[in-house]
Parts: sequence; structure tokens; C-alpha cells
Amino acid sequence: MKKPYILVTNDDGIDAPGLLALKRALEEVGEVVVIAPDHNWSAAGHTKTMHKPLRVNEVKLADGSPAYASNGAPSDCVALGVLGFLERKPDLVVSGINEGPNLGHDVTYSGTVAAAMEGVIAGIPSIAVSLADYEVSLESEALSYAAQFIARLAKSILAEGLRGDFLLNVNVPNLPREEIRGVEITRLGKRIYKDVLIERQDPRGRTYYWIGGEPPTGVPEEGTDIWAIAEKKISITPIKLDLTEYGLIERLKKWGLEV
Amino acid sequence: MKKPYILVTNDDGIDAPGLLALKRALEEVGEVVVIAPDHNWSAAGHTKTMHKPLRVNEVKLADGSPAYASNGAPSDCVALGVLGFLERKPDLVVSGINEGPNLGHDVTYSGTVAAAMEGVIAGIPSIAVSLADYEVSLESEALSYAAQFIARLAKSILAEGLRGDFLLNVNVPNLPREEIRGVEITRLGKRIYKDVLIERQDPRGRTYYWIGGEPPTGVPEEGTDIWAIAEKKISITPIKLDLTEYGLIERLKKWGLEV
Repeated sequence: MKKPYILVTNDDGIDAPGLLALKRALEEVGEVVVIAPDHNWSAAGHTKTMHKPLRVNEVKLADGSPAYASNGAPSDCVALGVLGFLERKPDLVVSGINEGPNLGHDVTYSGTVAAAMEGVIAGIPSIAVSLADYEVSLESEALSYAAQFIARLAKSILAEGLRGDFLLNVNVPNLPREEIRGVEITRLGKRIYKDVLIERQDPRGRTYYWIGGEPPTGVPEEGTDIWAIAEKKISITPIKLDLTEYGLIERLKKWGLEV
Repeated sequence: MKKPYILVTNDDGIDAPGLLALKRALEEVGEVVVIAPDHNWSAAGHTKTMHKPLRVNEVKLADGSPAYASNGAPSDCVALGVLGFLERKPDLVVSGINEGPNLGHDVTYSGTVAAAMEGVIAGIPSIAVSLADYEVSLESEALSYAAQFIARLAKSILAEGLRGDFLLNVNVPNLPREEIRGVEITRLGKRIYKDVLIERQDPRGRTYYWIGGEPPTGVPEEGTDIWAIAEKKISITPIKLDLTEYGLIERLKKWGLEV
């Protein structure tokens, strides 16, 4: 049997340790190609770059292995891969390992998740993976364990032939293996954002703003991704791309809206 | 009763005719404030700009009325509005009128929809609206009708007190009122993207790429947004922000994944 062909990308950029850890672990599963952004795109969302040309450069990762760096967003890196830059269509897209959690509504902003969405739209099973800690030292034991776990998950996905209009969003506690208490299949929880607008003056006296504040917290309701991480467990949430709120359709029909 | 306070933004930028048409129509419903990007952000996705400061300038729209232009993404414009740039929290966020459809998987890329998502995350009822035609001449009769329709919808939303973890994504045919055949409450349809990678050489012989190709088509299955537009009807799709694929949770639990 032909080796599975795996496209690896991220949103922290080509030099991120999480990308390299993921790539090395996935080499146990198949042939891996890396196309990643040449700079950090955190909170970039799902982007399709059409107003500027995309560049792709051959680079070397920290271990000397070859990779491609692009000026595009994470989702552009996947688009490049599936639209013909690669010789064949990948069997799996894996995006990460993100430095920080992607929980609850975070998934709507996440460049990591957006890259996996692009894979799904191209008909390829896709995984987004994050190390769920804002104080990310990228302590090598935790990162390396997270990468190993994803390699095992990738094998399961390929063996089960899991595919459809969804991706798997995985958050792994920033802990060594022996401190992780289990694996939970979860739903998205409720994020509580702590963003504040910080007003500053530039040297010319003109006002500008930062979106700042504390990292978000969340409601650790049992069964949610936020709960799983609070319990020091790995969270796997299936995320669908059909965003229809079916429960509202009948209610809205009763409004009798007319032209 | 206090007049509703309505925040209007878009992703085509502060100078877009769709923004002005929307603003004017919504002035029949409440007090309107415009905060919109100072340039075009189409296909920008859901963004939270944290790596650079946001500027906000007072500008005038084509009719001389005041507005705010920001260097941030559409979703940043809403974040600015709800985090304290405005004196009070808006009662409604309306994003558009986008020049081009946002149907099916388009909603995951759409800056127009992302701005409405940001409103929902802030707990505000939100609408995204698009003129569903790639050949947008922004023929004034169609644009003005779309804006009027949204004003009526806004009144219904405020009267019904509709709120929750969802937005309404509205696509209006690019036609005068008398040619529009009805209003449908729809689910998202299946887009068929026609993107192709176009390879070019720069004057120094280096390769670069465009994501190009034909506009997407779609499967006009009855009950979907793609079908409604094909039938020359207005499509209203409720879009939820809980992206969990609940139908997969039990199946994945059976995999018995372990640490």
C-alpha cells in the first residue's frame, strides 16, 4: 500500500517548534510535506488571498529538513497544496501544533482551524491541534507527547476512512504524558472573553487602540472542550462546516417575511 | 422608548456604495453609527488584530454624513464598537451590503459574516447581508431595495427580541424589487469552488502564484441558500457559532482513544 501523503501547516509560522514536532511525529505515519506561513498569522481566520500574489520559498526547518514557506495565510498554504503546487493531493491535512488553546468560539478566529477547514473544503480529512496553555514554554516533553498523540489519531483517521464536512479540533494540555488524565470527545464550550480596548497616544498626539486584556476564561461545563482541558484531559471536538442553525428555520418561517 | 442603536460595518471598505445604502435605510429604524475598514478586506475571515495597533479616523461618507474608518478588519471594527469606542453598546450589528454572494461554505471565509460573528460573540443580534451577484454593477435600484429589505428585517429582529448564539446571513438577488420572487428561510448549500492556481514568473525569473479561476457555482438543492438565489428569491440562513458536529461525538467515542 502506498504511504499516506500528509500536508502539515500551522498559523504560528514556519519556524515554530510545534510545526517541527508535528512533522517529525507524522513521519511515522506517512510521507510528510510542510507548507507553512513565513510569519505568524494567529487569529487570522479563514482567508483566501486573491488580491496579491502568493510566493513559495524552499526553506529548511531547524533539523535541516526541507519545507516550503509562503507569504499566504494558513488556509492559503493548504489551498496552494491542493490546487496543484504539490504533485498529488494529500490524504490528510494537519495544522498545528498551535501555541495556545483553540476552545469554544476561538475556533471561529483560529488560523490553525481555518487551515483545517480549507482541507475539508478540498475533501481531505483534516485535524487542527493546539497546546492548550497561554503560558506556552513549549516544554519539549509536552510538545513531543502532543505530536505523538496526533500521529496515533492520524493513523486512526486513515484506518477508519473518516471523512465528511467536518474536521477534528484537538486541544492537548501542556503537560507531560503521565500528568494527562484521559481523552474526551467533546462539544465546544462557552468562552468568556476578557478583551479590553486600550487607548494610547502616539508621539504626534493622535489616538490609537490596542485590543488587549486578560486571556479568555470559559464555562467548564461537563462534556465541553473547556471542561476537558480544565480536567487535564485531551479534548477532541468534531467541528462541522455546515454552520446552519437548523433549530431556527421553522421559527423564522413563521415571521412571514415578504418581498 | 429609546431609539435602537445600530452599528453598521462591511468588508468592502468605507467607500463602498453598499455601506452607504445600508446606513441610510437603517436610519429609518434607529440611530446608526458606521465603523468600517479603510480598505477592502474581502475573504478576510474572522480576525482579531492583536499584533498591531488599531487606528480610527473620522471621515465623511459620499453623502457628507460622518463615519469612522479603521485600519482593522471588519470584525475588529465591531470589536472596537463593543469594547468601548462607542458610548453605549449597540442593539444590533449589520454588516454589508457585500458586493457578491456569501453562500454555502463562503460564510467561513467571509469578512462580512465575520463582522456579524463578532457582534454575536458580544451578545448582540447581528445580520450579514450580501448582494448575490458576481457581476455587481451595484445597480442602484437593486441595492436600494436590498437595503430597504434589511431595514424591515432589522425591525422584526428588534421587535421579536431575537438573540442567541447565531446570526442571520441574508443574500439578496441583484434585481429590482418587482423581479424578486419571494423570501426563503434556508440552510447552507453546497458550494463548488472553481479555484485554480495560476503560475507566473516575475521579471527576475522567480515563480509566484495567484489563486484565480471562475467564480464558484453550487448545487441548487431545494431549501438551500444556493437554490433560493437561483430561483431569484431572497435567502435568509440562520448561522450558528456552535460549530460542534454533534452527530459524530458518539462515533468517535467508540474509537476508545487513550492517552
